[in-house]
Amino acid sequence: MLARAAAARRLLSSGAPAGKIGFVGLGNMGGSMAGNLAAAGFDVVAFDLSAASVARAVAAGCAPAESLEDIAECRHVVTMLPSSPHVSGAVDALLGGGFGGEGSMWIDSSTIDPLTSRELRERLAAKGIAKLDAPVSGGVKGAAAGTLTFMVGSTEAELGQARPLLEAMGANVIHCGTSGAGQSTKLCNNLAMGIQMVGVSEALNLGEKLGLDPKVLASVMNTSTSRCWSSDSYNPHPAVLEAVPATNNYDGGFGVSLMLKDLKLATSAAEAVGSSTPLGNATKELYSMTVDHGMGGKDFGVVLQMLRGNRIE
Amino acid sequence: MLARAAAARRLLSSGAPAGKIGFVGLGNMGGSMAGNLAAAGFDVVAFDLSAASVARAVAAGCAPAESLEDIAECRHVVTMLPSSPHVSGAVDALLGGGFGGEGSMWIDSSTIDPLTSRELRERLAAKGIAKLDAPVSGGVKGAAAGTLTFMVGSTEAELGQARPLLEAMGANVIHCGTSGAGQSTKLCNNLAMGIQMVGVSEALNLGEKLGLDPKVLASVMNTSTSRCWSSDSYNPHPAVLEAVPATNNYDGGFGVSLMLKDLKLATSAAEAVGSSTPLGNATKELYSMTVDHGMGGKDFGVVLQMLRGNRIE
Amino acid sequence: MLARAAAARRLLSSGAPAGKIGFVGLGNMGGSMAGNLAAAGFDVVAFDLSAASVARAVAAGCAPAESLEDIAECRHVVTMLPSSPHVSGAVDALLGGGFGGEGSMWIDSSTIDPLTSRELRERLAAKGIAKLDAPVSGGVKGAAAGTLTFMVGSTEAELGQARPLLEAMGANVIHCGTSGAGQSTKLCNNLAMGIQMVGVSEALNLGEKLGLDPKVLASVMNTSTSRCWSSDSYNPHPAVLEAVPATNNYDGGFGVSLMLKDLKLATSAAEAVGSSTPLGNATKELYSMTVDHGMGGKDFGVVLQMLRGNRIE
Amino acid sequence: MLARAAAARRLLSSGAPAGKIGFVGLGNMGGSMAGNLAAAGFDVVAFDLSAASVARAVAAGCAPAESLEDIAECRHVVTMLPSSPHVSGAVDALLGGGFGGEGSMWIDSSTIDPLTSRELRERLAAKGIAKLDAPVSGGVKGAAAGTLTFMVGSTEAELGQARPLLEAMGANVIHCGTSGAGQSTKLCNNLAMGIQMVGVSEALNLGEKLGLDPKVLASVMNTSTSRCWSSDSYNPHPAVLEAVPATNNYDGGFGVSLMLKDLKLATSAAEAVGSSTPLGNATKELYSMTVDHGMGGKDFGVVLQMLRGNRIE
Repeated sequence: MLARAAAARRLLSSGAPAGKIGFVGLGNMGGSMAGNLAAAGFDVVAFDLSAASVARAVAAGCAPAESLEDIAECRHVVTMLPSSPHVSGAVDALLGGGFGGEGSMWIDSSTIDPLTSRELRERLAAKGIAKLDAPVSGGVKGAAAGTLTFMVGSTEAELGQARPLLEAMGANVIHCGTSGAGQSTKLCNNLAMGIQMVGVSEALNLGEKLGLDPKVLASVMNTSTSRCWSSDSYNPHPAVLEAVPATNNYDGGFGVSLMLKDLKLATSAAEAVGSSTPLGNATKELYSMTVDHGMGGKDFGVVLQMLRGNRIE
Repeated sequence: MLARAAAARRLLSSGAPAGKIGFVGLGNMGGSMAGNLAAAGFDVVAFDLSAASVARAVAAGCAPAESLEDIAECRHVVTMLPSSPHVSGAVDALLGGGFGGEGSMWIDSSTIDPLTSRELRERLAAKGIAKLDAPVSGGVKGAAAGTLTFMVGSTEAELGQARPLLEAMGANVIHCGTSGAGQSTKLCNNLAMGIQMVGVSEALNLGEKLGLDPKVLASVMNTSTSRCWSSDSYNPHPAVLEAVPATNNYDGGFGVSLMLKDLKLATSAAEAVGSSTPLGNATKELYSMTVDHGMGGKDFGVVLQMLRGNRIE
Repeated sequence: MLARAAAARRLLSSGAPAGKIGFVGLGNMGGSMAGNLAAAGFDVVAFDLSAASVARAVAAGCAPAESLEDIAECRHVVTMLPSSPHVSGAVDALLGGGFGGEGSMWIDSSTIDPLTSRELRERLAAKGIAKLDAPVSGGVKGAAAGTLTFMVGSTEAELGQARPLLEAMGANVIHCGTSGAGQSTKLCNNLAMGIQMVGVSEALNLGEKLGLDPKVLASVMNTSTSRCWSSDSYNPHPAVLEAVPATNNYDGGFGVSLMLKDLKLATSAAEAVGSSTPLGNATKELYSMTVDHGMGGKDFGVVLQMLRGNRIE
Repeated sequence: MLARAAAARRLLSSGAPAGKIGFVGLGNMGGSMAGNLAAAGFDVVAFDLSAASVARAVAAGCAPAESLEDIAECRHVVTMLPSSPHVSGAVDALLGGGFGGEGSMWIDSSTIDPLTSRELRERLAAKGIAKLDAPVSGGVKGAAAGTLTFMVGSTEAELGQARPLLEAMGANVIHCGTSGAGQSTKLCNNLAMGIQMVGVSEALNLGEKLGLDPKVLASVMNTSTSRCWSSDSYNPHPAVLEAVPATNNYDGGFGVSLMLKDLKLATSAAEAVGSSTPLGNATKELYSMTVDHGMGGKDFGVVLQMLRGNRIE
């Protein structure tokens, strides 16, 4: 915490005084992120359509914003919103409210499609506003613990300016390329991850039906050529790891609906640029059917149960 | 090498004198394995239908066998053959030649289907012959260097008896369960690996078309939730790693045809036990089409090029 | 019926006296087929492992066989069995019982894999026994009504000899090529049919969610470029046609498990000959998951409900 | 032709004088359609960005428009454009040019996504302009011959008003439901058709590799449970039908790229309404890879060759 407060001071002393930080979108992720910014010493003005969410942010040290227009006067704005139209709407409102001016910066941590992201960058650039895309991985727990990973698309200079804020909310800041590269990188990562989770699930399911002990099978996989995060750190079989969603009735992790959203964004971007993603599409449809079968709110590892014909309530 | 010769002596002094070791199947893999056994001090009698292969084994220290019947007198037999019918044929010939007797053991390192493997075990057990399934990973290089991983299905006692031989040919010996578990584990591992390779390929291909640097994208993936062996150790994009098949025109690795063979075995076993493998099947078809398009002999990472419409000669 | 009795007489008078017809496999299909042969005036000896099935055949005019050996003395044998091992077993028993002699013929109406079919032909040919493969379409209703379609693989002469029997059991006899061609043709037909049913289901499901009237949509499809049997004659949506399984809670048609069996045979044959079937495999997996979700006994049109997340009891 | 001129007179005499018909989009399809309208006696003003296309329309009896604004004064406008943004752009320009007024009607024969279609309807309705969606099937030949099928979404009254124009350009006018239903119906039809073509291709390819005569196999399929338009009227195997693209080096039919476009629209609409389309997506990816392999301009039946690893130039 002291380190973070120091980071806030560095920002203030760097010739780029932070001033107020506007934060839009105080859900499970954004609420914690705004709280961590406040705890690190930043002066955060928080907005959400839900008064309860604003109240929680105030309890965590933020000042409340009545409307998006209250945010427009901030030099730095961070958004953490559920989809492209929400982000576009926020940009509309803030530009309408006069957001802009020297050194102003928009950091978008939402996961949205790369083409909308690019379009917003151009609109903001026309007003002299820098835009970083900085989507995250690490989930609700990472947001609460301040250990998120940020995948950043920006110039080096912009990242330098934003880094103290990002480090107050996360443990890793990865520079992926110019604006848009953060979104693209996250979608590529989640495309591969979504496929890998199904691959691991199929292998564990098959192994169990062939009489193998899932724990032994997973231990071999994890030291062999099929090792991957979905197996060694987030295994979908309830018998393998402790303290993962699979051992908690698939509650509390990265929901199937969210994975499906990311796969839709990835495959849609792939269509736009003419990139074939046969497994990405097959995986997307499998998660889509998992939603149809009533498990959209469960962790995406529940696809293992979908393969077995189980419906987890 | 000294350690291996000591292992051979241990086997001899353990009350289970090794006597002659029969080795059947002296291809790219088996030839090196037989040579490593001989180099470790074992008395190896080697057989292959190819006289040239036998000659190479002799140069590496093995004694030549004229026929499978010459092998039948050995107490230990190791097979490394391309498919189920080859292995069944070898069992037929050896049993016909009188193979058997107290302490005799068959170690099958071929990758075959789990159901044939079980059937052979039963036939051998009826003659008092122990059977281990011990398929390998590590490829031609691992076979040459003696660094293979063996996935073993057997009793503990059988593995104890076989361990000196296995350690003379490999660096890792993993006990996966009772007889058949080695084959099952290997197929599950390769099912997941085959899927992961396509997942990584789709992500890298999409990322590149979205303007990302493949090297940067891979570095993010490798420290994030899509990290896996196919990305961090065997990346299919020519620009990412050195000394992998992707940087060698996809030559010299694990061929598409071999991966296709393993996926056929895995999905066929899955059908037999009623286990759904939607991505496994989609992946199998993608590799099947890669073979149709003339790239069956290339490393399986060439699927990235198949996705791009390239035909690598 | 008179026409059929005349057919039987023609067979008797053709210089190829029918003598006794052995019939093996008296399930839902075979029981009706044997009865139709008897009703047409043939002298049928019927066998099944189930005494109740034999009793029903006797009530329909057949003579009972105590064992497969009783069948071995017949000149013509018809089998209608569930899978390749059953058919192989019957061949073993009958050859063991002395089946054979001049003009003897085996007609296999089971649906089995083309490779087993070829192997059996060779074994029978070695004993001078002609083998026709004559799998059927038309289902339980067609079997009862004697309106089956036979897809026949044989020489022209063999088909000439068998035709009176086939015409006693069915309405259409299609000569597909030499021995084995009947099995191959049926598998190709069912491969395409299985895919088409899913295609129609996806289109109707999408149309309904887009606000279209399924009946109107189906009527357009049925006069347009997506018309097919699965839409115009066997529509899977309960609101479109009358007197199809979809309007009968998906009971009484061609079960998902049977379709899955045929797709496994087709894709397995495809693997053996190196033919890529990406949609065939994706379809097989979808039916496999439909079985996992407890709907294996329902008509295969129930896949429309699987796509919607419904579980039909 | 006389009938069509009479139709034009009926329109003129119905109390709903046709006046000028604006036609926007004079490509392979639109050019013929505009010509057929003129030949039927309608007073057509034709626009395209390509001067050559306008010249051809003038040769076919249309008057040239200098700009979209020239079209804005027409009471009826027909558009036949390649994609959603083109149609939106035309609507922008025409509304900007004052298009509207009592009885004015927009008939959109382009194939675009249902959601854009709905949005345009709302914008036009706000100006009192009726909008029909009337996408076509029948291809370039049907457009030339005036035998297109129109799938119309509109009120009954609107369709009554538009019918004389549609009948001048096509042979079938199908009322699919209210506005938007035409687009939805076409996408559902093409979704099923695209899947069926691959199903037929896989079956024919497998059959041929199993030794069947493609012509015999197709004839069985066409009288059996896998009969469909893609087999009996548009067979993708060069040996089966005459006068189809497959016998013309896959030239001159419905291009892979166009099929891919429709499948993207269909699966994208499916995502928007939460409808799972696993085969639709697998099919889309297969056509996408066919484009990657350089065959985007060939008829979509070329997917049979893609499955065989052939590249048709």
